[in-house]
Amino acid sequence: MMIKIAVDAMGGDHAPKEQVLGALKAVKAIEDIEITLFGDAAQISEHLTPHDRIHVTQSEGTIDMGEKDPIRAIRSNRKSSMAMALSSVRSEENDAVVSSGATQALIAGAHILVGRMKQMKRTAIAPVMPTAQGKEFILLDSGANLEIKPEFMVQQAHFASVYAKEILGIDQPKVGLINIGTEEGKGRPLDNEAYEMFKNNEHINFYGNVEPKAVLDPPAEILISDGFTANIVMKTIEGTAKGMGTMLKQEMSQGLIGKLGLLLSVKNLKRFKNRMSPESIGGAMIYGLKGVVIKAQGSSQSDGFKQAIIQASNVVRQNVIDKVGTVLDKEEEA
Amino acid sequence: MMIKIAVDAMGGDHAPKEQVLGALKAVKAIEDIEITLFGDAAQISEHLTPHDRIHVTQSEGTIDMGEKDPIRAIRSNRKSSMAMALSSVRSEENDAVVSSGATQALIAGAHILVGRMKQMKRTAIAPVMPTAQGKEFILLDSGANLEIKPEFMVQQAHFASVYAKEILGIDQPKVGLINIGTEEGKGRPLDNEAYEMFKNNEHINFYGNVEPKAVLDPPAEILISDGFTANIVMKTIEGTAKGMGTMLKQEMSQGLIGKLGLLLSVKNLKRFKNRMSPESIGGAMIYGLKGVVIKAQGSSQSDGFKQAIIQASNVVRQNVIDKVGTVLDKEEEA
Repeated sequence: MMIKIAVDAMGGDHAPKEQVLGALKAVKAIEDIEITLFGDAAQISEHLTPHDRIHVTQSEGTIDMGEKDPIRAIRSNRKSSMAMALSSVRSEENDAVVSSGATQALIAGAHILVGRMKQMKRTAIAPVMPTAQGKEFILLDSGANLEIKPEFMVQQAHFASVYAKEILGIDQPKVGLINIGTEEGKGRPLDNEAYEMFKNNEHINFYGNVEPKAVLDPPAEILISDGFTANIVMKTIEGTAKGMGTMLKQEMSQGLIGKLGLLLSVKNLKRFKNRMSPESIGGAMIYGLKGVVIKAQGSSQSDGFKQAIIQASNVVRQNVIDKVGTVLDKEEEA
Repeated sequence: MMIKIAVDAMGGDHAPKEQVLGALKAVKAIEDIEITLFGDAAQISEHLTPHDRIHVTQSEGTIDMGEKDPIRAIRSNRKSSMAMALSSVRSEENDAVVSSGATQALIAGAHILVGRMKQMKRTAIAPVMPTAQGKEFILLDSGANLEIKPEFMVQQAHFASVYAKEILGIDQPKVGLINIGTEEGKGRPLDNEAYEMFKNNEHINFYGNVEPKAVLDPPAEILISDGFTANIVMKTIEGTAKGMGTMLKQEMSQGLIGKLGLLLSVKNLKRFKNRMSPESIGGAMIYGLKGVVIKAQGSSQSDGFKQAIIQASNVVRQNVIDKVGTVLDKEEEA
């Protein structure tokens, strides 16, 4: 059976070109997906080589990236590419959405147009981040709920555990609580309450506290905190990677021998740079919805969209949301 | 007049060797300082070349780095090197303390043994961090108060502004609020309240919100948040720098040409590595005390201690605490 992916072609920094090229790469890479690009048909056609598994649906207007009132933005732009793509999942025309539009608008739109799964009281946004060992970890909640109750963090950890198992192929994924120290008892009241709940939940493989000193070599595959903290962690990783890139460029070009060394290292340095680029950070799934919604980085190039589309199809194929529902239903009964 | 610095020679990873060597380097570098090393005289003498401006005071016992109850640790170890060094500032035998002992014990000890300045309701710990442009910024509060009221953040910003001006030589230093977005209105209630108070304080040069995406190239010289968040930022910078160092090592040694490039780049790479090493992160001053207390990184080598000692002497020489007191007195009147 074909998996149908809706792609919001108008969000992000390079729309719609990179979305279109990403869609073309994705249909070439996997056979069982069909893509509908939502956006300006004229602009899309400039980049699209016709393909029998890529369709285009015309939209009107866009959601401004700097929109201050995301709920209003969605409500007053029902014909925008983002809103139409989301609605097509609600109506079951499509199985999943990929968008690189404004995060808060996408979360608000997903709530309104896709709907929340009944077992999860709060959504979460969960990017998959690279580690220094060439593996991955799930960071959540990277910004859906700035403040949160620990019981909702437990639900999110269940979701992430299913995701890590089904999509990342990690058996018994460990959950680590982001904290300022590794010992039990560290942190704010929220962190201590969450620690207790994780520790006492027999269906969560709880590792304990994880200091962000270990953020690129984490002892757990899932790192969790409130939406403010995890977003700060994500952006600090990004900022440090960028700043270190600048420093490396400055230092590597010093001296004649150094310049020669730099020349010979260009290929290796490029690979190094790619490991922490936005492309290497996978699409972030919004947890807690009735449908599959993946947020691609705003700066994504075609490879980023290709990956996000494949990711979305994997989540549909593995039936992740239903499996999470089953886990949470069992929790409720217990 | 001589500036007298008490050095806790027993804290940190390489005690007392690196403290002793750092003290020797510091007295060589500046003429107007006199150092007293607190610690085990026998161990200290193994590394100390006698110097007329370096004294040794015997201490007993140490504060355990993993101590869970820092207040009790201090109260029951009054003869420890950390406690004796702190007490010597209260009794005015010394003008400042440098310690690389356990942070929470040092903060607790400073409260008990040095005392809080009456104008500041909360202390803060403020490391000076490197930027990609070879400049510095002050990060606070990096862990003294995990939760805090915005009015105390304003007092800390005043302290940091005086410090930046007097010690870092920055005229009109800008204060940025660490947040998940740059627009006004972003973040938690705390962040919004703090934003309002900073904006309306005419003695603070408020830049606005700063996202940690810009953390190594910040648009402000002072970045402030609550103690939990700023500590998470500091540790995420450290973790990302470490992880990227690992990745760089992995990638740079790929292929024969790459290996040659690496060989020719060794000197430049070493300089790059040093820019984000613990040594390059200056000692962190504890703001809000009656005396000067500088926390050096636990992993500091002699150069780290030398820098922290010089930093302490600068704070004394520039009379920073009195100047902060004057600013806060004026605030109170206004």
